[in-house]
Amino acid sequence: MDLIENLSIKDLYRLHEEGKLSEYDQKEVTLGGFVKANRTFGDVGFLAINDGSTFLNAQIVYKSSDNDALMAKLGASVKAKGVLHVTPENKQPFEVVTEHVELIGGVDESFPLQKKKTSFEYLRNYPQWRMKTNTFNAVFRVRSTLAYYIHEYFHSHGYYWIHTPILTANDCEGEGQTFNVIADEKHPEEYFNKENVHLTVSGQLHVEPFALTYGKVYTFGPTFRAEKSNTVRHAAEFWMIEPEIAWAHLSDLCDIEEEFLKYVVSHTMVDCKDDLNFFAQFVDKGLMDRLNEFVNTPFARVKYEDAIKILQNAVKDGVKFDVSDIQFGLDLGSEHERYLTEKVFKGPIFLTDYPKDIKAFYMKQNDDGKTVGAVDLLVPYIGELCGGSEREADYNKLLSRMEELGMNIPAYQWYLDLRRNGSIPHSGFGLGFERLVMLVTGMNNIRDTLPYPRCYKDMMF
Amino acid sequence: MDLIENLSIKDLYRLHEEGKLSEYDQKEVTLGGFVKANRTFGDVGFLAINDGSTFLNAQIVYKSSDNDALMAKLGASVKAKGVLHVTPENKQPFEVVTEHVELIGGVDESFPLQKKKTSFEYLRNYPQWRMKTNTFNAVFRVRSTLAYYIHEYFHSHGYYWIHTPILTANDCEGEGQTFNVIADEKHPEEYFNKENVHLTVSGQLHVEPFALTYGKVYTFGPTFRAEKSNTVRHAAEFWMIEPEIAWAHLSDLCDIEEEFLKYVVSHTMVDCKDDLNFFAQFVDKGLMDRLNEFVNTPFARVKYEDAIKILQNAVKDGVKFDVSDIQFGLDLGSEHERYLTEKVFKGPIFLTDYPKDIKAFYMKQNDDGKTVGAVDLLVPYIGELCGGSEREADYNKLLSRMEELGMNIPAYQWYLDLRRNGSIPHSGFGLGFERLVMLVTGMNNIRDTLPYPRCYKDMMF
Repeated sequence: MDLIENLSIKDLYRLHEEGKLSEYDQKEVTLGGFVKANRTFGDVGFLAINDGSTFLNAQIVYKSSDNDALMAKLGASVKAKGVLHVTPENKQPFEVVTEHVELIGGVDESFPLQKKKTSFEYLRNYPQWRMKTNTFNAVFRVRSTLAYYIHEYFHSHGYYWIHTPILTANDCEGEGQTFNVIADEKHPEEYFNKENVHLTVSGQLHVEPFALTYGKVYTFGPTFRAEKSNTVRHAAEFWMIEPEIAWAHLSDLCDIEEEFLKYVVSHTMVDCKDDLNFFAQFVDKGLMDRLNEFVNTPFARVKYEDAIKILQNAVKDGVKFDVSDIQFGLDLGSEHERYLTEKVFKGPIFLTDYPKDIKAFYMKQNDDGKTVGAVDLLVPYIGELCGGSEREADYNKLLSRMEELGMNIPAYQWYLDLRRNGSIPHSGFGLGFERLVMLVTGMNNIRDTLPYPRCYKDMMF
Repeated sequence: MDLIENLSIKDLYRLHEEGKLSEYDQKEVTLGGFVKANRTFGDVGFLAINDGSTFLNAQIVYKSSDNDALMAKLGASVKAKGVLHVTPENKQPFEVVTEHVELIGGVDESFPLQKKKTSFEYLRNYPQWRMKTNTFNAVFRVRSTLAYYIHEYFHSHGYYWIHTPILTANDCEGEGQTFNVIADEKHPEEYFNKENVHLTVSGQLHVEPFALTYGKVYTFGPTFRAEKSNTVRHAAEFWMIEPEIAWAHLSDLCDIEEEFLKYVVSHTMVDCKDDLNFFAQFVDKGLMDRLNEFVNTPFARVKYEDAIKILQNAVKDGVKFDVSDIQFGLDLGSEHERYLTEKVFKGPIFLTDYPKDIKAFYMKQNDDGKTVGAVDLLVPYIGELCGGSEREADYNKLLSRMEELGMNIPAYQWYLDLRRNGSIPHSGFGLGFERLVMLVTGMNNIRDTLPYPRCYKDMMF
């Protein structure tokens, strides 16, 4: 039990910030972690170790006659009992002076990390080691912190977390290609007595009945797309958050989305400030400005129709787009979205009331007969962060739309029936979790936000 | 926005418990939810509605001339603005008297729930409706609350949540049959450039490297077994929690497991007391005694070898087991486990130091050469709740054991390498989330703890 009941490095930095570290001055502490750096000057040596509790390292001061300490190379794990010295005059607010560093696990020639800067691509070959580098150490801490505050926000706001299924025979039509799941290749239909069982692309349809009973619910789980796209923004396996709220109309949904995202991001900015400082210094210089703007500025709300007019006027004024024939009905490209968020509104925007033909069957049909109550949240440099809508709550309108689209009605009868038994107006959105991690860290490849990325042609153990 | 910023039924009961509800007496409130019961007496009618925020219903008093109210059958959704009356003399501490009940969504003849008692089996055919019954309404509220406190415990104790992959080509050997995942049946290997991609049976191997960097980590996600077993305790898709803790040895692991479980269960007992009262009254009479014992009594710790002696003596004393040839090496059956927990120790026990031949390859080899540092937590009436171990941290010992078992070493080289670069002693356990839900609710079929159960021969949309 020696180490695990001790103070962590994070605890020590927190005590320092609270002005209480002097209480530990000259006291004995035990630290353990992995080695980030090791150097000697004459009689003394300095080990920088990290225990994962925070981005910051602790400095261990040892005697250069200590052979264990000398052998503690980058990546090795060590433990050291010593005396804490508060060092207000130094860059680090404290150091631990030890008689002996215990080398718990050394490293050998098979260890691929080195002191020099390594590319993110190279590190993707080593998902079991890359979290020991500064960047990935910070990425996964931020990822976990964001995930925690997502649950915390929902719990404190009266939402219930519903574990919608991963395996399904029924799914959000038109959301893309799916992976099939088979227990036995010779008898693929035998296990579940179903012709086609696949991995879910969205928990929305399955979570809607829970919203109609519990009022406020959400999903947070893995989601899958089998598209053969090899881009920096697509993964075959990623995590989604899908809140679904009874009684909420489209403008309520925007209010909730904005409050939720600002809550999660601002809490993470406090908890992970040292990680974010690192990203702002080494990964994305503009990060802090963008995040501060994100949490402090109201998100604009723009109707799709008005966005089209803005873009049409921009074309008249000489702005060049690859697609410049801009008409109602156009599925906006990222060049148009970026122009709107980065040049016109200079911040996140809710784009609402899209043409029904470019949106999903379950979205609420507006009275104009041509648009639906959809909303996408577009963010500068990130693009679409969330997509949502009010759901069509009228049985006949939903049925007509599904027939119009030639959908398999019997397979969706259970879903349609939610509109004839205890129907309530309701709305929801989906947030791709990795996009949020990218927004907050400045990392620009989804592979570098996932512990073990699973992408087209790309999967390590 | 009308309803969603109002007080929920849970808020009103909380105000009552805090002695503050009188502040709302004679004030206007708006409630919405689905109808649990509706009856009239002469000029007045009484609607019991539930909004999902709590197990408890609110009573709406209406005029029997109100046609909307009269049509609000079981399962219909309604909204009512009215005046709150604090009613200390009644069973319910308050009621809402309304001029008019708004019928938001009626029910028709397709709605399968009725006022009479229905079997759990029947309700499994209606995963989209069953959460409107008392039992399932409570089950999924308890499920969500347990899940929240799991995250809350880990976050407040310095753990990071790691999203280990669902798709994997590498897995916990010998943990059972797996589901294969295929993007394209004609070219099954094409998508990931891998021969065999399957759904994970455990995140343990993938989370271990994170424990060696971050110290304390856990997984919480879906897990899959393709076994063709049709029992009340097996599902093809279920959720697992797998904490992994650096520096922890076997006794530390028991300490953590016990503290963690008591924390999660006791917080849920407070938050969901009305749900649990219902289960104790209608599902499992012994529930409250068992849960109180669970959170208040220290869990016993017993070595496997001593358990064998206890069982051997029991056989000598005339206790009858189906398997009564009890020798070191026996994989205990549930009859033996129940005897130990229910008759001998009368409470949960940690059974430790199992024979290596009945446990997994990665467990720490004890000095006796025949046992490993494994621990199962056995609970009366539930059986095994958690299984864990200290992990073998020595490269050569782990390699020999894997060779002995004829494992595919190259596929596990990355895992082996964790023992030669920065190795740290570490331990972890796995908790099947649905078993915890069964423990806390008294439900005895895993299908009745899952929103959409996926079992052998059993899967609804």
